[in-house]
Parts: sequence; C-alpha cells; structure tokens
Amino acid sequence: MRIPTYDDVLVAHERVAPYIHRTPVLTSRFIDEMAGASLFFKCENLQKAGAFKVRGASNAVFGLSEEMAKKGVATHSSGNHALSLSYAAGRRGIPCHVVMPRTAPQAKKDAVIGYGGTITECEPSTTSREAVFAEVEARTGADFVHPYNDPRVIAGQATCSRELIEQVEGLDAVIAPIGGGGMVSGTCLTISNVAPETRVYAAEPEQADDAYRSFKAGHIIADDAPNTVADGLKVPLKDLTWHFVSNHVTDILTVSEQEIIDAMRLIWARLKIVMEPSSAVPLAAILKNRDVFAGQRVGVIITGGNVDLDKLPWLK
Amino acid sequence: MRIPTYDDVLVAHERVAPYIHRTPVLTSRFIDEMAGASLFFKCENLQKAGAFKVRGASNAVFGLSEEMAKKGVATHSSGNHALSLSYAAGRRGIPCHVVMPRTAPQAKKDAVIGYGGTITECEPSTTSREAVFAEVEARTGADFVHPYNDPRVIAGQATCSRELIEQVEGLDAVIAPIGGGGMVSGTCLTISNVAPETRVYAAEPEQADDAYRSFKAGHIIADDAPNTVADGLKVPLKDLTWHFVSNHVTDILTVSEQEIIDAMRLIWARLKIVMEPSSAVPLAAILKNRDVFAGQRVGVIITGGNVDLDKLPWLK
Repeated sequence: MRIPTYDDVLVAHERVAPYIHRTPVLTSRFIDEMAGASLFFKCENLQKAGAFKVRGASNAVFGLSEEMAKKGVATHSSGNHALSLSYAAGRRGIPCHVVMPRTAPQAKKDAVIGYGGTITECEPSTTSREAVFAEVEARTGADFVHPYNDPRVIAGQATCSRELIEQVEGLDAVIAPIGGGGMVSGTCLTISNVAPETRVYAAEPEQADDAYRSFKAGHIIADDAPNTVADGLKVPLKDLTWHFVSNHVTDILTVSEQEIIDAMRLIWARLKIVMEPSSAVPLAAILKNRDVFAGQRVGVIITGGNVDLDKLPWLK
Repeated sequence: MRIPTYDDVLVAHERVAPYIHRTPVLTSRFIDEMAGASLFFKCENLQKAGAFKVRGASNAVFGLSEEMAKKGVATHSSGNHALSLSYAAGRRGIPCHVVMPRTAPQAKKDAVIGYGGTITECEPSTTSREAVFAEVEARTGADFVHPYNDPRVIAGQATCSRELIEQVEGLDAVIAPIGGGGMVSGTCLTISNVAPETRVYAAEPEQADDAYRSFKAGHIIADDAPNTVADGLKVPLKDLTWHFVSNHVTDILTVSEQEIIDAMRLIWARLKIVMEPSSAVPLAAILKNRDVFAGQRVGVIITGGNVDLDKLPWLK
C-alpha cells in the first residue's frame, strides 16, 4: 500500500489541469440562513464528465508511461468513475475497458461508449464482476484504475479541495459524501497538509452507513447490499481510503433518505444546479447537525451531476 | 425617452457589483459538437434572485436619491422582475410594492414576500393591472421601475454582456432570448460600444413571435395573449427596447415549443444547471440554424433559473 503524499497532489494538479474544469463555488443566503452557517458549495457536478471522478481518472491516465498507455486502462464501475476514465482515456487517445453489470442504466452505458470506452458486461454480482474483470485484464494487459483505492486516484481527487481552499479563505470545515472514500481521502490529504486547522467531515446515508460503523468500530465493515437513493455511496471503504478516514476525519454524520431528498430539492431550487442524490448528503447532514457547524464557514463538496432527469426522487 | 449610454453601464456596474454575482460561463464539448460551434453559456440562472433581472433592478434601486428611496419602488410583474426588485429593495432596506395577478403562482408570491416585498393583487387583465398599479403608485409615491422599458434597467442588464466579453475573448456573436427586450437591449448597448464586430441575435418562441414580426415589419407589433412554455417571453417590445432591437440586432430567430423543451432538457443534462424554458430558446435557435453559427464562438445568455421543479415540461 503506497500512501499518496501532498507532492503527489501538486504533480496531479499540474497534470490534470488541461483536462478538467476549475469548478465554481456557489453560495446561497437562503440556505445559509437555514443552516445558521456560511456554506460554500464546490460544484463538481459542473466538472467534465459530470463528476469529481475525472480528476483521479485523469491523473491515472496521463501519468502512464507511453509504453503502459498503449495497452490502455481498465476498471469496473457502473457509475461516474466509468464515465470519467473513458473521458480521460479518450482525451489521451488510448483504450478504456469498462466492466459493467448488464443491468446498469442504458444512459450510463451510452455515456461510456460516447466517450470512447469499451464495455464488457457481467452479471450483477461480485463473483461475476471479478471473473469478467480478470479475463479483460489478462486479455488486454490494460492498467487497472480502481475507482478509489488507488494512490493516483486519491491524489487526483485531492486537487478539488486544493482549489476550494484557494477559492474560499478561512474555512472552519469541509464536508463531503462518503462511499468508498476517494473524495474524502483526497480532501484529508490536502487539508491535513495545507489547512490543518480545518476539520474534515464525511456524510453518509443511514441506509448505507458502513463507513460510519467502520469509523466507530475502528476497522473496515463492509455492507452486503445497501439500498439508498444516493446510489454513488453504496461501495465500502478499502485499505487506502480507510487510512485517511481513520486518521484525519473528525466525524461521520448520517442522514435519512427523506433528508437526502429534501436537501437535494433545496439545492436544485436555490443553487439552480442539477446534482445527484449523493451530492445532497452533506447539506442534509449540516441541516441535521446545526450545532456542529453554527456560525462557521463550511466547504461543501457537490460531487456529481449525473442523474436521470426522468426519475427525480421528489416526483413519485 | 432617454436612451441609456455606455457610460450609464459603467456607472451601473460599479453600483450593482456588491449586490450581484459575477456569474460563471460554462461550456460543453458535447453540445458544441451538436451545434458545430463553440458555445459559451453565461449563467444568469446562478444570479442572485435566480435571474439577470436583478442587475437592472439593483441599478434602479441603488441609483435613487435618499429622498426618493424613502418612498420605495413599485412595479407590476408576476415573474423574475418582481423577485429581483424585491431583493434589491430589501438589500437597501426600502419598501417594494408589487402588483401581481391573483392567479400568479404561489411560489412566486412567496418569493416576493420572502425578499420583503409587498404584494397588491389585481385581476389577470391589463385593465385591472393598470388601475390597481395607478392606485398603488398614487398612494405610496413609490418610484416606478418598469421591468424593461426603463433606461436604468437596460443599463443594468447591459452589465451581463460586459462581464461575458471579459470572460470570453473573440466572440463572433451573442444570443439572448427576447420578450420585452430588456436583456437584448442591454446586450446591444454593451456590444455595440465595446465589441462592435460581434453580432447580436435574439431568439423567440414561434408562439410568442411578436418581436420577430415587429423586426420584419419595422414597427412594434404586440400580441394579445401569446401562449408558450417560455413564460418569461410573453411581453411585448416598448419604445426604448425597440430602439435597440431595431438598430443593433442582426436577426431574430424563432423556435417551436418542442425545440425549446428539447434544448432545455439538453442543457439540464449536459451543463447540469437548472434553468427556465425561456433560457433554452437561444440554444434551440442555434441548433435549428447551424449554418448561421457554424464554426463560430457564440455567447449564449442563460437568463434565469426560476422554474417549478414539480412541473418539468418533459415530464407529462
């Protein structure tokens, strides 16, 4: 296990800058009044490929040697990492192999193909995914880029909070949603190095609270099949992300499904942005824990915007 | 009729800067490929009070003498101007009187009240509105700020394209939706002074094409009761906006209701922003007239984001 350093973040930021947006930070007086705090929303939903994941994926793709790059990259993901890796590989002009469950949404498959990725379908089970992925990896020799448990990916995600602390002075805290922990780990990596007085919080759905339970237990606990509207947050921590979460996170706050949906609608209505349910989890946690953030300046990572516009969770 | 000058724009920009956002410009490679052009979306949906209208309203409110300001401001509007004027008056701490049809959406009424405005209801007819407004004006002595046919308002709206040309170099054209013509007039005012080689287009729904027909006829034609999903664009041109439209606009392009809805959904899906049907009209016009903009750099004004999230036009 190689733990990425802040030097890796600096290298990553210079490497990925031509391929990503420096995303804007938005504010809302209305939401600030509700929260009793000053919130600064870092809008990675406005990022290339619609999510922060493009930072880590681009760092992995553009960090490959010419020799390695020829064989391309591979991953398993049915979400934003698949899109982001396909986008980054497309920009470099190298192959990208994605193993996806055949049950994944057609829109996600179309997006991967649109960016130039190649999909190999598996059954929707861990056993099938691992078997199919092993076959793809052996056949292509492509470099495996894990969605989060990869030092290159974490160093890439860390560029997000590096921008945030340049854009907003004097943050008391930063809060991000937690699934596998890639964004939270990157946030810890940057904040612990350049703004160690700023606290880092993670926010998680009650119905997929494996990171919360891991944090309290002191070791990784993985859920079998969590079910939440925040579908980007169903994956478990791994050793590398556990390192950052267990060492640098102040607390993990959990919220209900209804709290997530309410916070999502509030952000759409007031910030006028399209974002995923996963991205609403931090604001839900802030509104539920007003005492924790009262009067403070808080950075809130809006992680992604890839949502089905025909199935909005507040419209039944 | 006092025609605002570019000096008025400079004064306005300094005056309103503390009360408005310098809104970001977003891009999408996907949409660029569809359009065959490089599009730069100026996101006034991310503006204070959710629309560009706050620029003109703030210029009017903060330009009042102390003496005048005491009596407050008044307007008739059921849309973004009502919200914006209430917001600006609230920031200055002066009264804002809004005459609104009793049939206006409750959400809009709530927003006006939330910003501190006072609503006087009228019947949904021009006769009733004018009678009620005359009564309010006489009773309060408040300064009338017309939604668009006011030199202070046009100078304020002109600050939007002033930012745009600072944010994006070498624009071949700028396109904005047209209703009463406030934003288009402001755009003409700025562009004709500081980037005269840049063309200005207006985009309009076919079902509310009074500006298009006025432009072709050479005099103002007002529709009686146009019906379009782009509900911000139903109002007619007036003398001041006609001056700018007739002198500086290159062309007015019209689009169907379905084209507006398709462009709206495309922007939500790809730019990840919440915006009104009215704001989708320019992109619809670009996609319909690819030959006009082929290979060019085009600024596209996204005018506002105040939309009913429970009634999205692509969900029937």
